[in-house]
Amino acid sequence: MPLNSIINLMKIQDVDIVFLNDPKNVFYVSSYRSDPHERILAAVLFKDAKPLLFVPALEENDARNTATEFDVVSYMDTQDPWTILATSIKERHSSLTDWSIEKDFLTVERMEALRTHFPTATFGHNISKTLQEMRLIKNEQELAFMKEAGHWADEALKIGAKTLREGITELEVVAEIEYQLKKRGVAEMSFTTMVLFGENAASPHGVPGDTKLKQNQFVLFDLGTMHEGYASDVTRTLFFGDEPSAHQQKIYDLVLAAHDEAMAAVRPGITAGELDAAARTIIADAGYGRYFNHRLGHGLGQGVHEFPSIMEGNGMALVEGMCFSIEPGIYIEGDIGVRVEDCGFVTANGFEAFTHTPTGIDAYSKLID
Amino acid sequence: MPLNSIINLMKIQDVDIVFLNDPKNVFYVSSYRSDPHERILAAVLFKDAKPLLFVPALEENDARNTATEFDVVSYMDTQDPWTILATSIKERHSSLTDWSIEKDFLTVERMEALRTHFPTATFGHNISKTLQEMRLIKNEQELAFMKEAGHWADEALKIGAKTLREGITELEVVAEIEYQLKKRGVAEMSFTTMVLFGENAASPHGVPGDTKLKQNQFVLFDLGTMHEGYASDVTRTLFFGDEPSAHQQKIYDLVLAAHDEAMAAVRPGITAGELDAAARTIIADAGYGRYFNHRLGHGLGQGVHEFPSIMEGNGMALVEGMCFSIEPGIYIEGDIGVRVEDCGFVTANGFEAFTHTPTGIDAYSKLID
Repeated sequence: MPLNSIINLMKIQDVDIVFLNDPKNVFYVSSYRSDPHERILAAVLFKDAKPLLFVPALEENDARNTATEFDVVSYMDTQDPWTILATSIKERHSSLTDWSIEKDFLTVERMEALRTHFPTATFGHNISKTLQEMRLIKNEQELAFMKEAGHWADEALKIGAKTLREGITELEVVAEIEYQLKKRGVAEMSFTTMVLFGENAASPHGVPGDTKLKQNQFVLFDLGTMHEGYASDVTRTLFFGDEPSAHQQKIYDLVLAAHDEAMAAVRPGITAGELDAAARTIIADAGYGRYFNHRLGHGLGQGVHEFPSIMEGNGMALVEGMCFSIEPGIYIEGDIGVRVEDCGFVTANGFEAFTHTPTGIDAYSKLID
Repeated sequence: MPLNSIINLMKIQDVDIVFLNDPKNVFYVSSYRSDPHERILAAVLFKDAKPLLFVPALEENDARNTATEFDVVSYMDTQDPWTILATSIKERHSSLTDWSIEKDFLTVERMEALRTHFPTATFGHNISKTLQEMRLIKNEQELAFMKEAGHWADEALKIGAKTLREGITELEVVAEIEYQLKKRGVAEMSFTTMVLFGENAASPHGVPGDTKLKQNQFVLFDLGTMHEGYASDVTRTLFFGDEPSAHQQKIYDLVLAAHDEAMAAVRPGITAGELDAAARTIIADAGYGRYFNHRLGHGLGQGVHEFPSIMEGNGMALVEGMCFSIEPGIYIEGDIGVRVEDCGFVTANGFEAFTHTPTGIDAYSKLID
């Protein structure tokens, strides 16, 4: 239970109050998931009192039903939330306190509001890193959600492959994928679906448009779905046509070799930087190092931009239960763009992917079967 | 030109440096639009030096081509961005400076990074409110983009209406709307498309699901599209069937009367709170006040959660060029949910909507023509 772990840690570090207002952290400790936009949503944990969930009035019932270990306090849009929040906190703890805050999320404005209401408190502790580290390691429930999200990403690739035909546009393929997914009940993608034809996949900011598919082109799919608040993310580059050129074959095989090498290299104890190097060396040794111009991978969980970052210089040792992408690529502007990506988690002795779509330059034929 | 206005203001207020890291503000002053996720994107304005745009290395070319009035400086993922940023700033201005920051966006962590690199600087000014106020008033170019986004929201409602048939699910209607829009080149919605049948529209957190459409139900559509970085937002509640019940007719007409009253009441000088009251009084006088449980409207621009907030207690006088929604509703749980919404802008003597889809309980028949 994340909630108990944090409260135990508060006792050890002599922190009186933990103030969380990042909706992802609030969800993590309370199971209550909400996007409050500009409104305030906060979970307040006490060393020695029942935790408090502070929500807009419209969300009060939902919050009460979900966050059963919390006292729920709500406010109307016409009220000053900080006054209500401060009163609720003071009822639970005297104002002379040692706070821990999310330094990577709390704004200067909100910090000042807290200071105004708690002028004798100190705000020296940073809970952000602790929560980042806790959230790195996914539990069984979280892994189950991510596997299900991965399953739907695999389905999305099948739909995409079956949609390909000469003359179709990138945006039409995106439309078809999301349409078929929605009809099957998958309402939310984890980021903007990318479908890029030929050299478009080599642009670092390529977005799907009205480019028409031609014979003997690569089609790069990068997409993912959300399931119960957790994300999937997969990339496949499919060859559409009769026979790849020697150049296409070479670049594809190089990227796939880097992908497979990194997948095989994962084990508890290897560092993120070493894993990046395992893939990068293969591409660099073949002379294409400068065309692999991004990190090997990113963490994922409640989104696709979490920790750990799998990149050069990151000495963090990987631990069982960490989830991230492995996604080497080669991008030569005006020519070719290939990326192969799977996300998965570190097991006792390796890596288990959330996605299982075939790789290889002949994968397209397997997907349309 | 927002950039010049801010620099003039800096001279008046004797501010040396303005530090912007909200991507919407960066876009507003530089024309460069990007979502940096956890990376840093910043526009730094100087009282007496060329402004600086600080971007991740991958974005350098795009930024240079777009933000022509800025010096562009970039950093690699493997570098410490704060050291590079601080060096670039110090090249342009001595370190003893008076800064203005976005207190509603800058995190405590980033604030501390700035303090570390500029220990003698002061960070007392808050540019957030100034930019909020500037961004409230849209220029001709922005209004043109928002009209185009509104046009596509109208089209989306037509598609949605034509998709309705007995037995179709909410999510299938959403899928069809987004599919047809993507095929016509509209790739991005401004928020999650809502299609809710019957009493589902009365739930404050209703999300489209597998509920099937029945005869003589209301269908609530709430949707919008993005165009060149600007959002539209519209709600229509269509009656699907032969003959509305007296209850359906009464609730619908009440909401529409409140909507029309507010639309007609807009003029420069009226306050946001007065406008809210214009609509709310009609619903409250009919005895349904407690079922209209949200503010009358929200601002919109680079998204649907901007200022001004059209609600009780907001004494802000409306000014020509301000953009917002007018969206009264009545929600009786387990029974009925009706909302009618148009967004538009304040003109010299009234309000011009971005959307033009017919209203009235017979609007469905006009949309499927």
